[in-house]
Amino acid sequence: MKDLHDKILTEGIVLSDTVLKVDSFLNHQMDPVLMLKMGREFAERFKESGATKILTIESSGIGPALMTALELGVPMIFARKRKSLTLTEDLFVSKVYSFTKQEQTEISISKKFLNSSDTVLIIDDFLANGQAASGLLDIAEQSGAEVCGIGIVIEKSFQDGRKKLEEKGCRIESLARIASLGNGEAKFLVEETVG
Amino acid sequence: MKDLHDKILTEGIVLSDTVLKVDSFLNHQMDPVLMLKMGREFAERFKESGATKILTIESSGIGPALMTALELGVPMIFARKRKSLTLTEDLFVSKVYSFTKQEQTEISISKKFLNSSDTVLIIDDFLANGQAASGLLDIAEQSGAEVCGIGIVIEKSFQDGRKKLEEKGCRIESLARIASLGNGEAKFLVEETVG
Repeated sequence: MKDLHDKILTEGIVLSDTVLKVDSFLNHQMDPVLMLKMGREFAERFKESGATKILTIESSGIGPALMTALELGVPMIFARKRKSLTLTEDLFVSKVYSFTKQEQTEISISKKFLNSSDTVLIIDDFLANGQAASGLLDIAEQSGAEVCGIGIVIEKSFQDGRKKLEEKGCRIESLARIASLGNGEAKFLVEETVG
Repeated sequence: MKDLHDKILTEGIVLSDTVLKVDSFLNHQMDPVLMLKMGREFAERFKESGATKILTIESSGIGPALMTALELGVPMIFARKRKSLTLTEDLFVSKVYSFTKQEQTEISISKKFLNSSDTVLIIDDFLANGQAASGLLDIAEQSGAEVCGIGIVIEKSFQDGRKKLEEKGCRIESLARIASLGNGEAKFLVEETVG
């Protein structure tokens, strides 16, 4: 998605070979017009998916997920993150390990809002090792809902998240696919640079 | 705001004299169309405010704040919550005590995104004791930015948050003002019921 590529190239900060900082428009400060455009793009790509609910994780997923929900005309649910949950009987719970923060959190969604009649579209800001998306897949599975796809804002294509999720049979659509972050520069996959 | 009042009356769950649960449309599952309408309403009420940035706190504030930012054509920044921050030199930090959770968290905003040339509009999902809004006010003050107002989705008018913030000279606009939550029923302030 060209607008997103441009934004990554002009405002993204490459902190290391694996870390791209995008806190000026995605995960601290948010550009609302870009969020809306991303929501439209996800909605376009998944318009035939039959999604009845958009699923994401707080906090950075909320922006793109909310705009996708708006465009598709369905509700959005964001999973809550907690270090450790005590009362869980009314919740679907899964564990997510963050390599960046080196900690495990539990994510949860109220059982009230997801069931076997739902078709879920998962939206998240980053795909690296696929931990967050796998947690949401796990929750969808617990609820009996079908998952029609996963929409990612920025995919680190040099990490193995996509491979893991595709092995589970998921369709993945990423708005930007980053081939490498070497030499302080984000390089997109070749197929992406024309988009 | 009538759409919000209706939603509170049909979907809100009164858990006690002080607790209203709105997780079906505001702070767990989100109704994106209602979010957009709330953003439009805040934008209308603050259209002359000269806001250059919308400020909120993760996670439930992000939806209404993002839609307000979209309508006003300015960026939105959400403060991060942490139990305790270690590296803070690049951050504006304030403390927020949650009476509901009985814990203190630190909220922070990167110094990159706020300075004395900014005019800040604070948006949040709830106003009860005014702790969260006061934390954001404190951060705005540290940055030297002016605060042009505070937009609240649901105000518990029987608690003292509004009074405290008005004493600090803030203009507050709430989309729903709840007079009481007695007998399992949300009652709005009389002035609100015609809105």
